[in-house]
Amino acid sequence: MTALPDELQRELSGLLGEAWLTDPGERLAYAYDNSRRHAMPDAVALPRTREQVLALVRACRRHRVPVIARGRGTNTTGASVPVAGGVVVSFERMNRILEIRPGDRCAIVEPGVLNGDLQTALKSHGLFWPPDPTSAAFSTVGGNLACNAGGPRAVKYGASRDNVLAVTAVTGAGELIVCGTATTKGSTGYDLHRLLVGSEGTLALIVEASLRLTPAAPARAALRAIYRDVSAAAQAVARLMAQPVTPSMLEFMDARAVQLARDFGGADLPAEAGALLMIEADGDAQTLPHSIDALKRAAQGDGLISLDDASDEAARERLWAARKALSPSLRTLAPGKINEDVVVPVSRIPELVDGVQALAREFDLPIVCFGHAGNGNLHVNLLYDPADDAQSERAHAAMSRVFALALALGGTLSGEHGIGLAKREFMPQAVDAATLALMRQLKQVFDPDGILNPGKLLPDP
Amino acid sequence: MTALPDELQRELSGLLGEAWLTDPGERLAYAYDNSRRHAMPDAVALPRTREQVLALVRACRRHRVPVIARGRGTNTTGASVPVAGGVVVSFERMNRILEIRPGDRCAIVEPGVLNGDLQTALKSHGLFWPPDPTSAAFSTVGGNLACNAGGPRAVKYGASRDNVLAVTAVTGAGELIVCGTATTKGSTGYDLHRLLVGSEGTLALIVEASLRLTPAAPARAALRAIYRDVSAAAQAVARLMAQPVTPSMLEFMDARAVQLARDFGGADLPAEAGALLMIEADGDAQTLPHSIDALKRAAQGDGLISLDDASDEAARERLWAARKALSPSLRTLAPGKINEDVVVPVSRIPELVDGVQALAREFDLPIVCFGHAGNGNLHVNLLYDPADDAQSERAHAAMSRVFALALALGGTLSGEHGIGLAKREFMPQAVDAATLALMRQLKQVFDPDGILNPGKLLPDP
Repeated sequence: MTALPDELQRELSGLLGEAWLTDPGERLAYAYDNSRRHAMPDAVALPRTREQVLALVRACRRHRVPVIARGRGTNTTGASVPVAGGVVVSFERMNRILEIRPGDRCAIVEPGVLNGDLQTALKSHGLFWPPDPTSAAFSTVGGNLACNAGGPRAVKYGASRDNVLAVTAVTGAGELIVCGTATTKGSTGYDLHRLLVGSEGTLALIVEASLRLTPAAPARAALRAIYRDVSAAAQAVARLMAQPVTPSMLEFMDARAVQLARDFGGADLPAEAGALLMIEADGDAQTLPHSIDALKRAAQGDGLISLDDASDEAARERLWAARKALSPSLRTLAPGKINEDVVVPVSRIPELVDGVQALAREFDLPIVCFGHAGNGNLHVNLLYDPADDAQSERAHAAMSRVFALALALGGTLSGEHGIGLAKREFMPQAVDAATLALMRQLKQVFDPDGILNPGKLLPDP
Repeated sequence: MTALPDELQRELSGLLGEAWLTDPGERLAYAYDNSRRHAMPDAVALPRTREQVLALVRACRRHRVPVIARGRGTNTTGASVPVAGGVVVSFERMNRILEIRPGDRCAIVEPGVLNGDLQTALKSHGLFWPPDPTSAAFSTVGGNLACNAGGPRAVKYGASRDNVLAVTAVTGAGELIVCGTATTKGSTGYDLHRLLVGSEGTLALIVEASLRLTPAAPARAALRAIYRDVSAAAQAVARLMAQPVTPSMLEFMDARAVQLARDFGGADLPAEAGALLMIEADGDAQTLPHSIDALKRAAQGDGLISLDDASDEAARERLWAARKALSPSLRTLAPGKINEDVVVPVSRIPELVDGVQALAREFDLPIVCFGHAGNGNLHVNLLYDPADDAQSERAHAAMSRVFALALALGGTLSGEHGIGLAKREFMPQAVDAATLALMRQLKQVFDPDGILNPGKLLPDP
């Protein structure tokens, strides 16, 4: 049934009982992620305790068998696909919220809790955990930490790495480590917990996390600003980010995205729109109108076509409809999509978008840009027909040039999706040789036999 | 003149010219820090470029000579005292602000720039860099990063580690590494730049940093809340931190601190004050009154004796006078002081302060607590006569118990000062054996020959 050594198979079957899956039908459900890549694991473990995780990693290390941590497989980079076989450790049964401490702005959780379930539990305390990826309803906190997930709120409240106080984890060496303390300040030795965030299960398996919480603002309000061109919108983004009222969301759509939202999503948008910003503020009923006024002032400037506000939730929903109409409408352009999430300094957004549109012309493929403008984190959606070999080849060549462009503008490969399989071949362009060599040495310290998520994040030497 | 090998001495003298100091009188100025500890370096280098730093570290590595990075020596832990001799690298000539990019909320600086000089340069852009240690006017950004400096503003704006986007550094292996990008989001490989922050020059020498800036609020206002006892004040801190208006400062003084401020500082404070909170909000003229109202509501509760606000700067200064009167008045109690900066979860502040006062009685020495309540980061000031051997012994025994108490309450040894020499013997109590072993292995990767700041942060094996 499986390629695992008999001795390991017996040991882990004994350790985990019915939580040790080897049936091909059961394993199949753990073979893919949202990258649409696929590779069968030799077995799947559903541990309930950190002791089980520790015993499992130690056993797998003895047999040099890969161990691949898994939340719910919503990531887009292939990071949870077991390309080298081995044991997938799904944290779906380690999904408890262990403690919520409102006065400490802290929650202690197991890695398998769903982001959305955590938010629901926090709501009655008036608190939230800032990371809000699109997948929040069905992605886990552990998965969010593994790829340093962000989302629209990150512009004001930070991404996963900014919102974790401490983690307990099992290294590839089979050691249980406790990194950080559940306090909002700390200067006691090396900062290991932020190092584990974004490491995509290649250094250690997180078995518990102390999360930094934020009090929820009781109200929010939105603005929709339409500009003549990307440059005018990007200048507005810089003005918005240079004044004291930080927007709680600051989302961008380029001309093609606006066109799609209008033509296919039925959004009410003028034909001359060259770029659109969705701007949100949050606060209490007393301060919110003043915050919106400050954002309105900053949004105004050369190239502004229209500025609409949405003071109530219904009006806000209508404004967001334009953005939400986007993803489904992309499929009308082509059956295949490569969606990457490059990041550049905010001031370089116009060059990024202009450069991307030049690549769209050069490679004769539609590319649609939208995303988190306040962080310079744009989702570059390249559309093509995967059944057409020539188009596929052009699509991958164009995306390689998009990465090169983001790097040339002082940016990097990923803002919130991570590297996984999809971008690891580009790592040597993003990270210089000495730093990459150091990353390999760190990996070696945490995981001396290279059993944790092999083939991910770091390129082949 | 120096114990350095002749060959190294010739090479570095040739590299640095007049920026290579070996005269004992000149070296003496680099032998101490604010811990009042003292050890003579064999030489002092004042590099102007990263290339000089790189060449220096490589040369010192060949000869196994210690290299000790130094800002302005304001730290309190002995972290910049060259206890093993070697070469002190003072960054006083690498003090340029290379770039300020307001729209990107980013500044690129050399490590030797003074925190205060940076703030002055940022002011005209309406921006600031959040870390504000008491030493800000004469401490360097590089030194702030080395010990993860915080200050009162950290409760709203974060400490050094939360406010750096990227660093360029020279490792102990003599490699130039570039960690992170100057963007506010990133998920491209391992997070090395936050690992270097707080590593006290034991992993690498930072030669450039990209700092995350924050727009300055145009106005601020303060409240002074006096409570019957620490428990009532701590409950108010928890209420203040659980509502959406995060104070821009939230400082605490215990009963002894209040008494000192009254008796020696001449502050106008009632005799029955058991604890005091200084609460500040910042914002614009429109929102600030609402924010102050929200903080007033949260400050009110059982045990509140008085709540005064200071709507203008003069009134604010009077409120702060009580806090500022503290440090000089401590010297009236005893000639010697041990000032440690333990941190606990906010909800455990009452237990920490009660426990510290029990230790003061047990060891018959005054202990005064004040500090950054919103982060649970208290400065525990233990007062004694260093000329009295029995008192000195009791003082150190008591401080050891203070650390044990903070750890037992789920806290840690240091919130913002770091470990240095002063606290490294306590590291095995704060960090479990497996995690400490991993820290040693990471040190080995960055600094294979152990030349960077030997004898600091990590305890002897």
